[in-house]
Amino acid sequence: TESTVEFDPMEFLREFNYGRTSMLPDGTTLREFTIIAEDDGVMEVAPGVFYNVWTFNGTVPGPTIRATQGDLVRIHFINNGEKEHTMHFHGIHRPEFDGVFEPVGPGGGRFTYEWRAEPVGVHPYHCHVMPLEEHIVHGLYGVYIVDPKEERPPADEMVMVLNGLDTDFDTENNLYGANTIPFYYQHHPIQIAVGEKIRLYVVNMLEFDPINNFHLHGNLFHYYPTGTDTVPSFYTDMITLSQTERGIMEFSYDFPGKYLFHAHKVEFSEKGWSGIFLAEGP
Amino acid sequence: TESTVEFDPMEFLREFNYGRTSMLPDGTTLREFTIIAEDDGVMEVAPGVFYNVWTFNGTVPGPTIRATQGDLVRIHFINNGEKEHTMHFHGIHRPEFDGVFEPVGPGGGRFTYEWRAEPVGVHPYHCHVMPLEEHIVHGLYGVYIVDPKEERPPADEMVMVLNGLDTDFDTENNLYGANTIPFYYQHHPIQIAVGEKIRLYVVNMLEFDPINNFHLHGNLFHYYPTGTDTVPSFYTDMITLSQTERGIMEFSYDFPGKYLFHAHKVEFSEKGWSGIFLAEGP
Amino acid sequence: TESTVEFDPMEFLREFNYGRTSMLPDGTTLREFTIIAEDDGVMEVAPGVFYNVWTFNGTVPGPTIRATQGDLVRIHFINNGEKEHTMHFHGIHRPEFDGVFEPVGPGGGRFTYEWRAEPVGVHPYHCHVMPLEEHIVHGLYGVYIVDPKEERPPADEMVMVLNGLDTDFDTENNLYGANTIPFYYQHHPIQIAVGEKIRLYVVNMLEFDPINNFHLHGNLFHYYPTGTDTVPSFYTDMITLSQTERGIMEFSYDFPGKYLFHAHKVEFSEKGWSGIFLAEGP
Ligand SMILES: [Cu+2]
Ligand SMILES: [Cu+2]
Ligand SMILES: [Cu+2]
Ligand SMILES: [Cu+2]
Ligand SMILES: [Cu+2]
Ligand SMILES: [Cu+2]
Ligand code: NA
Ligand code: NA
Ligand code: NA
Ligand code: NA
Ligand code: NA
Ligand code: NA
Ligand SMILES: [Zn+2]
Ligand SMILES: [Zn+2]
Ligand SMILES: [Zn+2]
Ligand SMILES: [Zn+2]
Ligand SMILES: [Zn+2]
Ligand SMILES: [Zn+2]
Ligand SMILES: [Zn+2]
Ligand SMILES: [Zn+2]
Ligand SMILES: [Zn+2]
Repeated sequence: TESTVEFDPMEFLREFNYGRTSMLPDGTTLREFTIIAEDDGVMEVAPGVFYNVWTFNGTVPGPTIRATQGDLVRIHFINNGEKEHTMHFHGIHRPEFDGVFEPVGPGGGRFTYEWRAEPVGVHPYHCHVMPLEEHIVHGLYGVYIVDPKEERPPADEMVMVLNGLDTDFDTENNLYGANTIPFYYQHHPIQIAVGEKIRLYVVNMLEFDPINNFHLHGNLFHYYPTGTDTVPSFYTDMITLSQTERGIMEFSYDFPGKYLFHAHKVEFSEKGWSGIFLAEGP
Repeated sequence: TESTVEFDPMEFLREFNYGRTSMLPDGTTLREFTIIAEDDGVMEVAPGVFYNVWTFNGTVPGPTIRATQGDLVRIHFINNGEKEHTMHFHGIHRPEFDGVFEPVGPGGGRFTYEWRAEPVGVHPYHCHVMPLEEHIVHGLYGVYIVDPKEERPPADEMVMVLNGLDTDFDTENNLYGANTIPFYYQHHPIQIAVGEKIRLYVVNMLEFDPINNFHLHGNLFHYYPTGTDTVPSFYTDMITLSQTERGIMEFSYDFPGKYLFHAHKVEFSEKGWSGIFLAEGP
Repeated sequence: TESTVEFDPMEFLREFNYGRTSMLPDGTTLREFTIIAEDDGVMEVAPGVFYNVWTFNGTVPGPTIRATQGDLVRIHFINNGEKEHTMHFHGIHRPEFDGVFEPVGPGGGRFTYEWRAEPVGVHPYHCHVMPLEEHIVHGLYGVYIVDPKEERPPADEMVMVLNGLDTDFDTENNLYGANTIPFYYQHHPIQIAVGEKIRLYVVNMLEFDPINNFHLHGNLFHYYPTGTDTVPSFYTDMITLSQTERGIMEFSYDFPGKYLFHAHKVEFSEKGWSGIFLAEGP
């Protein structure tokens, strides 16, 4: 039983899931999310290349889950796959909600994860069932953002998960990208406005390779490693990330036109991890 | 002539060697250490896997040498091995005590290294005889901590050396770990107290692989790269380290239970670089 | 038509090209540089090892281009090679001067790049024609320094480009070094003065390998990642850099003698990425 997976990286880029909200008696905001795992999806990741994707809510990456520091986050997890899966979130939580020692059974197994959203930052989530590299490289991961109570300044916000695809099962990636589809944002440039602040939440989920990296053309960005501070640590055009390293990049372009961004590990950029910002405006 | 090496990673974890102390006329504390190198040890590193370890004072890693900034450190080094060896310390010292250009002969060769302990931080030491990768992968390394004169706040302090074993001599590691024995702290969780500050001195000595990394579950830690500052640089759950990169992690757990820590380079974690903190208390 | 390339790493080390300067009506300093690309050079990179180098102004790395923040930089680029080439600078500039979408034809093609020097820091430049790894590993790169308007304190300033040579065309480097020639600064130690501040601009251009690193012996250095700030971020003896990561190191030696510096990725140091500082003086 295979199902065909459709995925639109342009839609994913700026889509944030804030959950179903309600207020608890003590004034805390409760955010509830329902996440369904499946492992029978097939996606055409490049022309003629079909890949067995394992998905949270039907896509790779899964939905970008977003809360404000101190909110109560409740995840209703349902495993509709044929293998055991879990959700393991980076961030602070009780060990019983860590998604490691309690695999959730296939065919409809359920588990509810719950914690106060801590700390401020951008964090990955992923399945933590062994063999871990298999569950990751097939796509069971996503991004979890905890906003500070005092909001960051307004910006055009985006999420990029840096990932890869091992299409011939030899534990080496054959294709690379930001948000799964090789060269997607190169063939479909990301439209931004001249002079507008861009805030990019970037998470490296690349399996097998020791590191990934991100280079921005014609500009530098302020970089907040892990996003846990509201003061940037670096001003650069190059960051290096091993698996699950992540952060927030902020920048704006002063001149209209096309600007590449890509891995400066050339092999990765030539196999798909390359895109374009198209800055338009006055 | 082989000798059987026994090693207890749980004992090593919290064992600090402050040397034999005396006071110099000017009030300086002199700390003297005697370190003996051997290269004929055999250790059962995993069930049925025997590995030729080269040792400082009989273990891999060697003893954790600890001094306070400004102390006079004097190392009486004796090479009881069958090959030339030295001790090269990271940190500040005169070139004649650098352990590079003066190999110490086998069969009882001696050399005395001496310097003022500088700077504050956590530093590796290792043999610096060529071929360097052979002397490192067999185990001739350890940790050297320089405490600030004004002590860091009280904490449950630990040392982890991230390392690997190339058991089939093909210049690729077959086994990985923290403090040499694959999966040791997973099979023997490290007991800590809920609410108590943990201070972990971590040093990456992994040979062959370009980087190593360290992920902590259910929590984030304050990270002091190289330990040279008393203000943390990062608050994260993931660090990436190439060989001899090191730092200090500080964190505490609020909830009792089991928390994994491991390489997020999945290959390494599945070959042994994985452990558990068991937090107990009220 | 081959040409023999001579290169003196000791001369390159401290050679800065400030361009031909003139003053614009508004008081801005204009700095003009003429850079000529060629791709038929042959250099003896190690005894008996001849390598086809592609050069900017006849050397690998190309000239170190230097300006002060806010200067107008104008690069007159001439491609005298047999393949298309460009100049892509890291830093801030209009997209039409990015050297990506406008390849410059062989046999004398010309292009003029121009921008205000921004931001303060040490930046790489390199050809950006595909296949990028070929244009980089053959040598089409160099360093571009933007000084702050208020000059950094006086120092003995040097540039090291960390690079490698794939002499058998299998997309793995066979030789490594700082400034191209394996072991050059080990066979010809860099003379420095005891007590004098050293300021080292270091840029990693290594192709193929995921990371490079730099270890300094007997000392630590203050490190300014990307050189964009005038306050150092780290005090350490080890940095890890992926391709085009770079920064400024500052240090001085208190004691005369020989101090190694090298990759702590042992493979790289044993294949040429190793040198010596010879500190002389009172
Ligand atoms: Cu660029
Ligand atoms: Cu993870
Ligand atoms: Cu985790
Ligand atoms: Cu070392
Ligand atoms: Cu050293
Ligand atoms: Cu570049
Ligand atoms: Na593959
Ligand atoms: Na492959
Ligand atoms: Na091996
Ligand atoms: Na192996
Ligand atoms: Na090669
Ligand atoms: Na090779
Ligand atoms: Zn799974
Ligand atoms: Zn994890
Ligand atoms: Zn580029
Ligand atoms: Zn040795
Ligand atoms: Zn060293
Ligand atoms: Zn984990
Ligand atoms: Zn070129
Ligand atoms: Zn570039
Ligand atoms: Zn060394």
